[in-house]
Order: sequence, then C-alpha cells, then structure tokens
Amino acid sequence: LDESAMDRARERQDQLTKPPGSLGRLEELSVRIAGMAGDPTPSLDSPVVVTMAADHGVVEEGVSAFPQSVTAAMVENFAHDGAGVNALARTAGAENIIVDIGVAGDYDGNDRVIRKPIAAGTANLANGPAMSREEAIEAVEVGREVVADHAPDADVIALGDMGIGNTTASAAVTAAITGADPADVTGRGSGIDDEGLDRKIAVIRRALADREVDPEDGVDVLRAVGGFELAGLAGIALEASSRRIPVVVDGFITGAAALSAWAIDERVSHYLLPSHRSVEDGHDVQHDALGLEPLFDFGMRLGEGTGAAVAIGIYRGACTALREMATFEEAGIPT
Amino acid sequence: LDESAMDRARERQDQLTKPPGSLGRLEELSVRIAGMAGDPTPSLDSPVVVTMAADHGVVEEGVSAFPQSVTAAMVENFAHDGAGVNALARTAGAENIIVDIGVAGDYDGNDRVIRKPIAAGTANLANGPAMSREEAIEAVEVGREVVADHAPDADVIALGDMGIGNTTASAAVTAAITGADPADVTGRGSGIDDEGLDRKIAVIRRALADREVDPEDGVDVLRAVGGFELAGLAGIALEASSRRIPVVVDGFITGAAALSAWAIDERVSHYLLPSHRSVEDGHDVQHDALGLEPLFDFGMRLGEGTGAAVAIGIYRGACTALREMATFEEAGIPT
Repeated sequence: LDESAMDRARERQDQLTKPPGSLGRLEELSVRIAGMAGDPTPSLDSPVVVTMAADHGVVEEGVSAFPQSVTAAMVENFAHDGAGVNALARTAGAENIIVDIGVAGDYDGNDRVIRKPIAAGTANLANGPAMSREEAIEAVEVGREVVADHAPDADVIALGDMGIGNTTASAAVTAAITGADPADVTGRGSGIDDEGLDRKIAVIRRALADREVDPEDGVDVLRAVGGFELAGLAGIALEASSRRIPVVVDGFITGAAALSAWAIDERVSHYLLPSHRSVEDGHDVQHDALGLEPLFDFGMRLGEGTGAAVAIGIYRGACTALREMATFEEAGIPT
Repeated sequence: LDESAMDRARERQDQLTKPPGSLGRLEELSVRIAGMAGDPTPSLDSPVVVTMAADHGVVEEGVSAFPQSVTAAMVENFAHDGAGVNALARTAGAENIIVDIGVAGDYDGNDRVIRKPIAAGTANLANGPAMSREEAIEAVEVGREVVADHAPDADVIALGDMGIGNTTASAAVTAAITGADPADVTGRGSGIDDEGLDRKIAVIRRALADREVDPEDGVDVLRAVGGFELAGLAGIALEASSRRIPVVVDGFITGAAALSAWAIDERVSHYLLPSHRSVEDGHDVQHDALGLEPLFDFGMRLGEGTGAAVAIGIYRGACTALREMATFEEAGIPT
C-alpha cells in the first residue's frame, strides 16, 4: 500500500467539512483505497464485476441441491442480463463480465460470454485431484488475462462465481489453507438437507486425507480440491492487485478464491475489500484469515458477485466523499 | 401496506432465477417496499434526500462542541455541494433538497436553499418550551409542503438534518416519547467531553421535569423539547407516507423526527425504512420503538442524511433485482 497516499487521504479527511471521524468506517475505507490505488483522492468510476462459471465433478457425490445443468443455464441467463448479479451490477453502474472457464453443459450465450474453458468441469475431487497442476496454473493465467484484456481500466473489480457444486470445492480449499476442520467450514450451499450436508463433509474429509496438499502452495490446493472458477478468480485477484486495482470479495466461493490467491502471493491481501457476511459458516473463517471485516450481513447466499456488487456503491460513496467534499478552508468555515 | 402487492412480490421472488431466499434481506426489503408503493415491482429511480436545517436555543447551555454559526455555514456549504450529504446523495443518484426551517445565522445560499424559516432558531428548551404549539404545527406543515411542492414524484425520500444543538433536542424527544431515561438516550453528538455530556443530560432531565409533556401527542413533544427541523422532518415523513412514498431514516436526529411523526400518526411507521446504526446510544432505542433493524453499522455520526443516502443504493438494488431478474420460466430453466 502507498503510505504517502494514505497519509494525504487521512489528512484530507480531517480537513473536510464534518467532525473528524464522523463518517466512521467510510473514512477508513476511503483511506485504504487511497493506499491501494496510490492516489490520495481515488475515484471508483469504472467498476467491474467478473462472474466466472465452471462445473465440478464432485456433483456426482450428491453434494448439491441443483443439477449440474444449471451452471450452463445460468451462463445463458447471465448473457441475457437476467440474473441477480446482472441487476445488482447495473444498479452499481458496474460492467459485468461473464467468463466460462470450464462449464460442462451446453448454452448458446452471446458476445457477453468470454469463453476460456480449461475443461468440461473438474474431475470428481472425491476420487482424486480436481485438476492437474498444469490446469490449475492455466486457470490462474486465464484470470490474469481477463483483467489484462477486458478490464485494464477498471478502478475496482468485484469477484463473482457460478458453478453447481462449488461450495464443496470452496469448503475443501478453505479447510486446506486455514487448517480449519471441514465440519466448521462446510454449509448448505444452495440448500441441501442434513443428509446431503453430512455427505458433503465426508467427501471433503476423505479428499483432504487421501491427498497430500501443501497449504502454503495455493496452486497445489487448487489442483487437489479446487475448481476452475476458483483458480480463475484467484488469477483475477493476483493480476488486479499487481495493477493496484482494489478487489471486492463476495461470498464463500470468492472467499476461497481470495484465500487461494493469498496462498500464491500474500501481497494480494492488501488489495482485498470485504462486502457481505454470507450465511455459509466458513465465510467468517475466511474473513478472519484474510483480516477482513464484512460491511453488512443480509443473510445472502446467492454468489455470482451479488453481495460484492452491492458493496461497490458503498465504496464509491466513501471515495466520492473523500474526493468531492469541501474542506473547512474551502467552505470558509473557521475551525 | 398493500398486502396484495406484497403477496405478488413474494411470489415473484420465489420464481426468480436464484435459490428461493438466497438474496436474504434484500428480498424482504423489496417485498416491504412493494407493499409501501402498492406496486409488486417497485422502482426507486427518483430518490430524494431532504436535508432540513435549523438552530437551537439550547446551545446557550454549552451542550455542543461547535458554535451555532456552523449551522448557517453548513447551509452555505450544502448550497454549493460541498458537504458529506451532497457527495453521498450524488453517489446514490438522488436529488438533495436543502431546507432552511429556522437557521439563526446569516448565509448567502442560492436557489438550492428552500427558505421557510419558522423563526431564527428555537427558544432555549432548558428554560421553557422550545416553541409554541402553533410553531410546531407550522413546522410540520412546512415539511408536508416540501414534499407536495418539491418532491411529489419521488419514489423514496431520505431524511437528513443539520442543526448545532439538535442531538440535545433529539434526546429529549426520544426520552419523552419512549419513556427512556435521558441518560440512556443522550450521547456526545458532534463530540462534547464528559462534562458537556453531564450538562446535556441534566438539561434534558430538567426540561422534561419542568414541562408537562404528553408523550402520545407528537406535536406537544415537539413544542416542549423539539426543534424546527425535527418537526419539519416529521412533516416530510407524514406527507410521504400518505403518498405511499417510502421514507429512509438516517441517524439519531431523523430517528427523533420519525418518532415524533409516529406519535402524531402511528401509520407512518409502515413507511419507514432503516439505514445505519449510529454511534449515538439512543439510536437503538428509537429503532426498537419503531420496529426497525439497521442495515449496517459504520460508526457514522455526521447526520445530514449521509447514512440514509448510502442506504438508498442498497434499496435500489433490492428493487432492481425484484423487478428486472428473469424468472426460471423466462430463462427456460426447469425447476
């Protein structure tokens, strides 16, 4: 982070026409974004939400409430602006980029869908590694390319996901990296019952026990129990942070992607911004590991980038206040 | 509330392309706004933030960290778009209406300032009623007129305040209406020290003991210990609710105004929406009395409508998702 930009932002906050500190967390966040952007008065005029979709072989184990075909159907829905993230990105004035990084099913799509599939879904992580190390590296690279080719001028990037079965991969990744017990980071995803939840936890325990996973090597974790969209989103976070672009984490899946990115390069954590607290139990574990404190808790559990899109409006407000408010001197008010 | 519109909104939420309930509180809020607006797919395309300013005779008692002249100086700042609420209303795409309903000091202002002063500040509530009953009624009427004349087409109105000394009046109003002990609803406002806080609580105790206040008559409470901006904002809430326009409460001062409106006509509470949890202790007491649960807690204490302006973006997202998302049928996804 750019300490000098942060100092200047802090100094400016104390000169603006308000009691010092009276915008509370909005002030702190604006200072942090100043440090990320290397600009004492950053603007968030070009927000982008990247929603990455992929399928997961582990759905064979009955860990999801929805069939695999829903992933492709939702990509089609994203392409025609019909999904939750489309509506919420629009509200935030954000561009919504859709990436197919490994969808198994068929869809028509349109120009909106960037097609960079690594494979037609991962292998079933219950029986072996979700992907090869080469595939994991390639998927991270796809994420980097998406930023370079499609969002080089973004001033904030929100992470979003779609992939039936991806809460299983995310719980496994979270347990692997943080060392948490799988039972403590595994939730109901899009709505499985008690029996399904037990099955999900058992699958994750078995996968982590069967495989040698190096928790300090993010690529290895993604290989062993990850997903293509998790790896791609990690790549987005890595590339964005290397370009000083703040990255807004959404729910539990993007949280797992952010953890993976952090296990690849710790410096990424300086560029992460929280959004909501998801109903998935493991979200708190991720936030704690990454040093993030959610902005709000609306009991959301949709993913896609929906919570992160809502947060963009809040971050934009924080930056607009820092940049556009008058100082006491400008307003001619004696202090 | 329009139960039929709410039923239809709820039914639609369950058909949209997401697991039912997965947008959490955003779904509930959209249904509530549907009931307020009497429209199963409401839009929030014309938001308005009304910031009402007035002065308070009680500042003579040394209850504020800032001198009275700051009220007029801030009205000038509002008029030139230099204040926090200007920046945050702009971020939310909201019109920001500024009303002088009783500022004591001089300012130049411009067309932005609607000048409807009742008097040059209230009388010192430590020594007698803050205003006459006629003035209280007149101030409520000004609020009603502002909605009728300046915001008839608003689809949501956020309440904002400016007035050095107005946390003292707000604490007195809150204690009077809810029956809470003054010490439990009195905070540091824009930043007084321990001694000032003790003085503030003592002033409120004395005022409530000296005067016969009818807690079920909102106008009487405003007369005894209120403020012109509190009465005007109560009028805004009453007029907006009679027009089925949702009203977003900001911090502690607008909370006191909302309580006053509720003590004038209980039905207003159906049209109130929360925004943030302020650092003022009495804010929770107000929320509890009005049945509101804040959306976020950023430790804000600026007033002006700043927290409510941030909340507009969230409400707009909730309504846009309800209105613009595709149903499973529209998207051709079997359920």
